[in-house]
Amino acid sequence: MASTTIKFALFSTLTIFSLQTVVSVTPLPFQHPLDPLNKEEYLIVQKIVLHKYPKVAFHYIGLDDPEKDVILKWESFKPNVITVPRKAFVIAIINSKSHEILIDLRLKNIVYDTIYTGNGFPTLSVDEQSVAIELPFKYSPFIASVKKRGLNISEVVCSTFSVGWFGEEKSNRTARLDCFMKESTVNIYVRPISGIAIVVDLELMKIVEYHDRNIETVPTSDNTEYQLSKQSPPFGPKQHSLASHQPQGPGFQINGYSVSWANWKFHIGFDVRAGVIISLASTYDLEKHKFRRVLYKGYISELFVPYQDPSDEFYYKTFFDAGEFGFGLSTVSLIPNRDCPPNAQFIDTYIHSADGTPIPLKNVVCVFEQYNSIMWRHTETGIPNQFIEESRTEVNLIVRSVVTVGNYDNVIDWEFKASGSIKPAIALSGILEVKGTNIKHKDETKEDLHGTLVSENTIGIYHDHFYIYYLDLDIDGTHNSFEKTSLKTVRISDGSSKRKSYWTTETQIAKTESDAKISIGLAPGELAIVNPNKKTAIGNEVGYRLIPAIPAHPLLVEDDYPQIRGAFTNYNVWVTPYNRIEKWAGGLFVDQSHGDDTLAIWTKKNRDIVNKDIVLWHVVGIHHVPAQEDFPIMPLLSTAFELRPTNFFDRNPVLKTLSPRDVVACPK
Amino acid sequence: MASTTIKFALFSTLTIFSLQTVVSVTPLPFQHPLDPLNKEEYLIVQKIVLHKYPKVAFHYIGLDDPEKDVILKWESFKPNVITVPRKAFVIAIINSKSHEILIDLRLKNIVYDTIYTGNGFPTLSVDEQSVAIELPFKYSPFIASVKKRGLNISEVVCSTFSVGWFGEEKSNRTARLDCFMKESTVNIYVRPISGIAIVVDLELMKIVEYHDRNIETVPTSDNTEYQLSKQSPPFGPKQHSLASHQPQGPGFQINGYSVSWANWKFHIGFDVRAGVIISLASTYDLEKHKFRRVLYKGYISELFVPYQDPSDEFYYKTFFDAGEFGFGLSTVSLIPNRDCPPNAQFIDTYIHSADGTPIPLKNVVCVFEQYNSIMWRHTETGIPNQFIEESRTEVNLIVRSVVTVGNYDNVIDWEFKASGSIKPAIALSGILEVKGTNIKHKDETKEDLHGTLVSENTIGIYHDHFYIYYLDLDIDGTHNSFEKTSLKTVRISDGSSKRKSYWTTETQIAKTESDAKISIGLAPGELAIVNPNKKTAIGNEVGYRLIPAIPAHPLLVEDDYPQIRGAFTNYNVWVTPYNRIEKWAGGLFVDQSHGDDTLAIWTKKNRDIVNKDIVLWHVVGIHHVPAQEDFPIMPLLSTAFELRPTNFFDRNPVLKTLSPRDVVACPK
Repeated sequence: MASTTIKFALFSTLTIFSLQTVVSVTPLPFQHPLDPLNKEEYLIVQKIVLHKYPKVAFHYIGLDDPEKDVILKWESFKPNVITVPRKAFVIAIINSKSHEILIDLRLKNIVYDTIYTGNGFPTLSVDEQSVAIELPFKYSPFIASVKKRGLNISEVVCSTFSVGWFGEEKSNRTARLDCFMKESTVNIYVRPISGIAIVVDLELMKIVEYHDRNIETVPTSDNTEYQLSKQSPPFGPKQHSLASHQPQGPGFQINGYSVSWANWKFHIGFDVRAGVIISLASTYDLEKHKFRRVLYKGYISELFVPYQDPSDEFYYKTFFDAGEFGFGLSTVSLIPNRDCPPNAQFIDTYIHSADGTPIPLKNVVCVFEQYNSIMWRHTETGIPNQFIEESRTEVNLIVRSVVTVGNYDNVIDWEFKASGSIKPAIALSGILEVKGTNIKHKDETKEDLHGTLVSENTIGIYHDHFYIYYLDLDIDGTHNSFEKTSLKTVRISDGSSKRKSYWTTETQIAKTESDAKISIGLAPGELAIVNPNKKTAIGNEVGYRLIPAIPAHPLLVEDDYPQIRGAFTNYNVWVTPYNRIEKWAGGLFVDQSHGDDTLAIWTKKNRDIVNKDIVLWHVVGIHHVPAQEDFPIMPLLSTAFELRPTNFFDRNPVLKTLSPRDVVACPK
Repeated sequence: MASTTIKFALFSTLTIFSLQTVVSVTPLPFQHPLDPLNKEEYLIVQKIVLHKYPKVAFHYIGLDDPEKDVILKWESFKPNVITVPRKAFVIAIINSKSHEILIDLRLKNIVYDTIYTGNGFPTLSVDEQSVAIELPFKYSPFIASVKKRGLNISEVVCSTFSVGWFGEEKSNRTARLDCFMKESTVNIYVRPISGIAIVVDLELMKIVEYHDRNIETVPTSDNTEYQLSKQSPPFGPKQHSLASHQPQGPGFQINGYSVSWANWKFHIGFDVRAGVIISLASTYDLEKHKFRRVLYKGYISELFVPYQDPSDEFYYKTFFDAGEFGFGLSTVSLIPNRDCPPNAQFIDTYIHSADGTPIPLKNVVCVFEQYNSIMWRHTETGIPNQFIEESRTEVNLIVRSVVTVGNYDNVIDWEFKASGSIKPAIALSGILEVKGTNIKHKDETKEDLHGTLVSENTIGIYHDHFYIYYLDLDIDGTHNSFEKTSLKTVRISDGSSKRKSYWTTETQIAKTESDAKISIGLAPGELAIVNPNKKTAIGNEVGYRLIPAIPAHPLLVEDDYPQIRGAFTNYNVWVTPYNRIEKWAGGLFVDQSHGDDTLAIWTKKNRDIVNKDIVLWHVVGIHHVPAQEDFPIMPLLSTAFELRPTNFFDRNPVLKTLSPRDVVACPK
């Protein structure tokens, strides 16, 4: 993570290399009640708030979630009958106080306006970061530090970093700055000017703390450039092109922010904090002749990235990228034909600046179909005089966005399968967060580097990436239960079988939130959200199973401040009763939070979760020990999990799916 | 698993739907020393052995692995200088005794011929299974059983099943038969005639045991058909086509069985027992201007599938699919445009029948390039007045084969990435192994069903799939070590940091085989094969890391007979010193084996593995609790792991890779 100075100034349009027409879907006038705020709505918010408070900094403006029952009624009866309220929720700093303001967009009035007095601060705005990073250049101790190092200050660039919380009872809203050399490279993150600590008070907008402890070599720019235009031959390895088109057109349709494809329909929302939100995902049951609900809402609620260097210049780096920097604010424009294939379609949206002005963000999501896998197959040679082979080609739908929080790029995919599965995947790319060192070779190491020497004078610091998914599954209805099925060994000692053992299943319904806190590890089992009110014809409860990603568990001690704030990583799986306000696993005001509004705190109430509207939370983690291959830019490292129908359908729902028709590449 | 009656009679050629030309590569006359035996070589083997023994059943004929050092010399100096011996290894049953015969294919003589007197028997031949499954139809008690059930015997079909071992001191070579109704469906496996046990002595080729214990309903054929031609509308969900072509041609070249693509070259071998074997995989280092060795040899050594029903008719179902049925013998012809995309190329090979006759097997492997993912990317907005976005499209190479052992189809992919990773993936499809029951609804359940009621009268029995990969990694040379890096929490109590904790790494070199036995679970860490003799310029040991699949651990008790035989599943990771004869994790003679020739036994020697030629074994497992969606045919369930370069390269090896050139789909 780091600041995003000027992203508002420039947007990715078509790359000049592109030969293909990019289909970009501009949302239609028709509005789905879950559509993100449009330009006019942002302007209404801006006007109403500015009318009351002439001096305001908007740290969050987004759609206030309509009540779930209203949305579900709207979906069943459609807009002619049901009117869904349209409101915006605002977090603004006014006179150094955090306000929570609710605005009715139809009535154009303020519903409430309260001052938040708890711990923690709102998401940093891009605008204030842009101002903060200029401060060192007018701050003489910093100018002296740069001079002392023999560096050219006109080649220095600074970036903002959230400061975390380390037990202070009260504290001002501050940020730290790290500075880098942009001389001869755009890869600033790998050229840190180490040894300097700069703290900015964001309300006073001035440097309030400054140390220059020790000089470590600034790593050279050699081999750090990743821009194609700056590379010299030989290039390679060489990749051949694939030309493709879909003669029947794409298999999906985008109407505004609503998508329909194969047997799925869903809505793609967008929020400056959450980024992409998948809502109202339902799958059409060919046998029951109706859509059946699966996922009411899914998004990444938080991303916790604690670095593991306890030194003065790194200890505080325990980032909450969604809450501190905004996954939506950090979502970048996708590059057509690069980030998404030629058959992708793109969606645009708006975000907002600190003064409330709507800012268009192009190509924020792409949707495309992925080919080449098998849906199911069998070759049968066991019947005399018959040879049977059947194989169905699988087409999947991928919804992709990229969240670049400073140095790291998070590629966030939601894959939908006609067989009923949803596979969310995360992949990491971008630049490592490194520290300068005088060491040029591993043999010179005398103490723990807290990272890997990834290049001369460059330590890639150990860290974790913990993503927590909010998954409000509504399996065939809102009322669901969470089932833990253990696989238990049974020893046979009565001679009833020639076997000495076998395994069987033991299913337990999680009664309360405590029963549903799960560290995935050695204990074999299956985890499912089931609908106890709906059964298949032969009596199995309809459900969806979580096939988790390879789990990661937190390594900080439980009473360490960052871990208190990131306590949602204490388990890989949590289940809570649906509560409209429990959205952010690390809390609503995460910046400098004290961890008193986290999933770990909410679940202490140990609420009943049987046959209730429940939410599944899944933590996907990567412990990152950097390698030289991650330098100067990191090839994708990915992880994924699957939500798979389990006795949801009476049988294989794609039994009667045809492979796509064979087509010639270019008909004459 | 089950028998493969007539697969030799019929082969998949082009599907009639296919509009595209299928490129099928017939191996060239040039022979790589690791190429599978060709037709002429099989005929030489057949002739030589038949000359000595007029009555012989060939249970295995395959290439006798040339010595590794000879192969490596051959690879460096090329065929003009080095002649690699060409030998065939044969396992044959002659006069009811298992012979191991080595034949020199150049000298056309027998090098040795020894009788195996240990426990266990060779892989079952397809031919003997074809004879065995006809026996019940002339066996009056079976005819009576069928009649008693009111079934039409002309609609019955039987299949062979290996019998396992349950503590008997000595036993004859036998197989069990299960029979099914093929009336109104080709999905025989879901229509078992339950309650009957038939044991065939394979040497006497007669039924030696027979019980008919209890009659359970044979499930109906309703909804069991999976053939498209037998389905009635409505079909769906609908999938749209993708037309594609590669204007520059494919990015890979196949020369015989040797493949080169991007920065990779490797050899695809094929063996009637192992199926596909990847050998001599090396990656070209653009900076060092040379190929560097990664994987000397990789293949699936065994697949252990224990079912979890202890009853008389199921207890014995503890299959070792590779060793008992032959992964190569069970490899099916891939269906062009279905199992592999239109841009795939196919390789053909030969297998053999029990009389030693070579049998052509078409489309046994396909190779294709997969598009649409990102190799690396970054959007940079942190430098004033600059906007940088770079993204490289990734093309991957996939080598695919499908092994259908009776009911189950195993889709086996080896994915190669230009960034240096190899990602082996397994996906399961095909038909569940089920048991008939009188129960039509779950509410009627009175006792443990040992499975899921997946349809009326149909229990999908609980079972596991444990694949063990043999991975002879030679990281930049033959002499490697195995490193376990633990991630350890350090508590800070001296006030030296505002943090209370952080994590760091502790690397341990596994000294002996015991140190390298690893159950992957809660303990965080990294596992790598490194070359202690090669370092990067800045001093890191070059290595490849194993990013494991989500682990599965055995649930049978350790002293249970099947678990003794499948003891290679006791750990997820093992490392052994390279030993040419240690190929089969469950033993060379697995059928009815006593578990005295397994990886678990070999490693009891606790050999030194430091800076030696070592082999990594990785167990990938799936505990399978069937679901109704798996019926009547199962949508793919997949799992994968990654071998990822870690300080193998001095930096990101694809930094200077260009995205494939944008091309129009159909130039005018």
